[in-house]
Amino acid sequence: MNAFLQACRAAIGAAHVLTEPADTAGYLTDQRGRYTGRAVAVLRPADTAETAAIVRLCAQYRVPVVPQGGNTGLVLGSVPDQGGTAAVLSLRRLNRIRAVDPVNNTMTVEAGCVLQTVQQEAAAAARLFPLSLAAEGSCTIGGNLSTNAGGTGVLRYGNTRELCLGLEVVTAQGEVMSSLKGLRKDNTGYDLRDLFIGAEGTLGVITAAVLKLFPQPRAQVTALAALKTPAQALRLLNLAQSRCGPALTGFELMSDFCLQLVAKHFTDQRPPFAQRHAQYVLLELSDSESEEHARGIFEDVIGNALEQGIIDDAVIASSIAQSKSLWQLRENISMAQAHEGKNIKHDISVPISRIAEFIEVTDKLVQQASPACRMVTFGHLGDGNLHYNVSPPEGVADTEFIRQQHAINLVVHDSVDRFGGSISAEHGLGALKREEITRYKSPVELALMRTIKQALDPHNLMNPGKVI
Amino acid sequence: MNAFLQACRAAIGAAHVLTEPADTAGYLTDQRGRYTGRAVAVLRPADTAETAAIVRLCAQYRVPVVPQGGNTGLVLGSVPDQGGTAAVLSLRRLNRIRAVDPVNNTMTVEAGCVLQTVQQEAAAAARLFPLSLAAEGSCTIGGNLSTNAGGTGVLRYGNTRELCLGLEVVTAQGEVMSSLKGLRKDNTGYDLRDLFIGAEGTLGVITAAVLKLFPQPRAQVTALAALKTPAQALRLLNLAQSRCGPALTGFELMSDFCLQLVAKHFTDQRPPFAQRHAQYVLLELSDSESEEHARGIFEDVIGNALEQGIIDDAVIASSIAQSKSLWQLRENISMAQAHEGKNIKHDISVPISRIAEFIEVTDKLVQQASPACRMVTFGHLGDGNLHYNVSPPEGVADTEFIRQQHAINLVVHDSVDRFGGSISAEHGLGALKREEITRYKSPVELALMRTIKQALDPHNLMNPGKVI
Repeated sequence: MNAFLQACRAAIGAAHVLTEPADTAGYLTDQRGRYTGRAVAVLRPADTAETAAIVRLCAQYRVPVVPQGGNTGLVLGSVPDQGGTAAVLSLRRLNRIRAVDPVNNTMTVEAGCVLQTVQQEAAAAARLFPLSLAAEGSCTIGGNLSTNAGGTGVLRYGNTRELCLGLEVVTAQGEVMSSLKGLRKDNTGYDLRDLFIGAEGTLGVITAAVLKLFPQPRAQVTALAALKTPAQALRLLNLAQSRCGPALTGFELMSDFCLQLVAKHFTDQRPPFAQRHAQYVLLELSDSESEEHARGIFEDVIGNALEQGIIDDAVIASSIAQSKSLWQLRENISMAQAHEGKNIKHDISVPISRIAEFIEVTDKLVQQASPACRMVTFGHLGDGNLHYNVSPPEGVADTEFIRQQHAINLVVHDSVDRFGGSISAEHGLGALKREEITRYKSPVELALMRTIKQALDPHNLMNPGKVI
Repeated sequence: MNAFLQACRAAIGAAHVLTEPADTAGYLTDQRGRYTGRAVAVLRPADTAETAAIVRLCAQYRVPVVPQGGNTGLVLGSVPDQGGTAAVLSLRRLNRIRAVDPVNNTMTVEAGCVLQTVQQEAAAAARLFPLSLAAEGSCTIGGNLSTNAGGTGVLRYGNTRELCLGLEVVTAQGEVMSSLKGLRKDNTGYDLRDLFIGAEGTLGVITAAVLKLFPQPRAQVTALAALKTPAQALRLLNLAQSRCGPALTGFELMSDFCLQLVAKHFTDQRPPFAQRHAQYVLLELSDSESEEHARGIFEDVIGNALEQGIIDDAVIASSIAQSKSLWQLRENISMAQAHEGKNIKHDISVPISRIAEFIEVTDKLVQQASPACRMVTFGHLGDGNLHYNVSPPEGVADTEFIRQQHAINLVVHDSVDRFGGSISAEHGLGALKREEITRYKSPVELALMRTIKQALDPHNLMNPGKVI
């Protein structure tokens, strides 16, 4: 192992080969603090050539590689296992914006760029990079690509996959595949790009990408609607999409209990209605015309929805401040739930048309399995994606409750499967769901995945123990 | 071979194992009539199970498989070679619409459904399936997916790849991968879907797909702008995108010579301007509000463009009939060029920001290589995709001119390469560009493609001689 570390020092400089516990600690524990792995070193190359050199050394010395961006993942995809033989390959120093082309509406960035920086650089060129998610201040675009991150803009702009036109990748053999052309159309062979996107670093290391940019909307308007059931929320979605078309950029469902939790732990934050309602939907409209025009459309949608008895009440934010406070209700749910204590999280999707029935059926099953537990159901209804979380019953210690995690996961995920859904809509598999997915994915798909993994990474050195 | 055919007859019925020349002829010659291959039989299974049975027999007897949809491809991807040992696997009998889900905005269709049928079924459910291209009356959705077809709606809706949420595929081993969940988000492993999309049948056979549907726009308005240069067209694109956002659904460039050809061969079809202009742009706006609103936006865009000197004249279609006649100018260019005689076609893309310079530079190079030849340049400017076609000089016999095809391809494609572009933007590689691509694609990418092909189809039976 000393020879390997010596060679790494020669390749990227001794200062960037971290082996002291004080230096490596921040790279070994996952974001939620649930797991700490061990590594032979944390390697911090400066650029693509150094990254390739490191991967070649790892191949030569048969050292497993764990690529890592901002280490904000939720499924233990970016931390090493307990073996202590792996090297963490941190991409954070690859943080250059290589090019911005506002006419081509593209931006070429290195993997270690923080998502918020990418958003800001796009805005500086009067363009929009629409990927937006809770960890945007610290997650990196390489991690976003490797996990095909979702977030709140998927309804209109798609997942990270849809926002990428090309990649630069270091293969498991340490070769550089540079495909950074930034073309909207290129039908010259297999879609290698989408194979590396979402592969969570198990097929190669993404070092740079060409991202799609969009015109900035002239106005963004937010509304909050109060209604009785997820089924009514679906009717509202249909109405809003038909009236707004692609201008509808956000559609988030939140149950009353979610907002009670927010109000409890953030005392100034509560829905702006005189009475409580069973469900709420946050809508966002991005308009290329004007604020007045956007408000007109929302007034129309809300007027229609009230008339048809789909919703019971609604507000349209009258200022940026009010819009922000409506979004805070949504964004603080996870934090409020964490303040309330440990809980069991699910990141699931089902066909949008089945989501209301899914909630009804699964709520009952969970209550049978764990009576009086509290459902914290919210998420990207417009994408069929719910964060279907479960908190312990009032008064039950969360450590005791967490013991039921496996049983409750099984109830929820079996139900997801019966509804034709996915047990990981936007977080990926990582190490956390790698075993579990074998229960739900068909043998043919699993075999194809193994064949591809074996072909591209025959020595199983790229993020082993993750995904497959 | 008799044993193989006997087994095929047992599997799908003798009536669907075609071996008589009169029966097989329509499956062996490509759409443009340039090439006729040979096959041991044309096999027409009725459904996915029969397709899998056929592929298993082909694997067992080592018979190469050439999957075929509507056989409208332009790169010899769907016809067999001269060997006479391959079987054409026609998917046309797999033509059921399995499901339409307007709430999930999805439609599950079999590979043999004709694109126009898919469009019509979507419309019957008050939804839009936006893929649209010249061959839509006879091409099949399986072929569209296998070639990742483009067309006129890519600017807003993306290529076929972006319109698909899931696939059913028969693997090279004759197993069925069924992944027809219709989810907007599913991060549970490698993106097998996008690997089969665009693989031109070389990795497996697509038998069904879940397609994305969209709300139907309330109004569609067409405009034609007259301007001086492709560079001005780019300025117009930027202006229109910033004003229209995603409502801008079409942006097609046509040179004056293109429209002269149309006027010559379709005498009633000419641009509605008093004088000739060097370039024209066809714009389409799809509005979720109203025709009046859409016209207002276009008037605004055109007013601004006139004021800024970007365009010299413009009309907004005042009726559906006028809108159709503007679109006919664009759609009849290929036909007019064919009436004019044989020509050399290129389907290229470059970054949108470089397209004006590309045309200027490449026009000169082509003129040096073949003086006085006539450039027929038109296409999807909003996607950076040009049909950069070349007709012989006035008075030169086209057969003589066609002898220069290889030399002119080299000039054009080398220039595309220098501009960071693609030599096949939307048509694929097939057999036609399979050799040529090795000149332009990096060794690392080609090696990755070969590794994947070898892993998924180790006996090289799936559409051999195509793509790779």
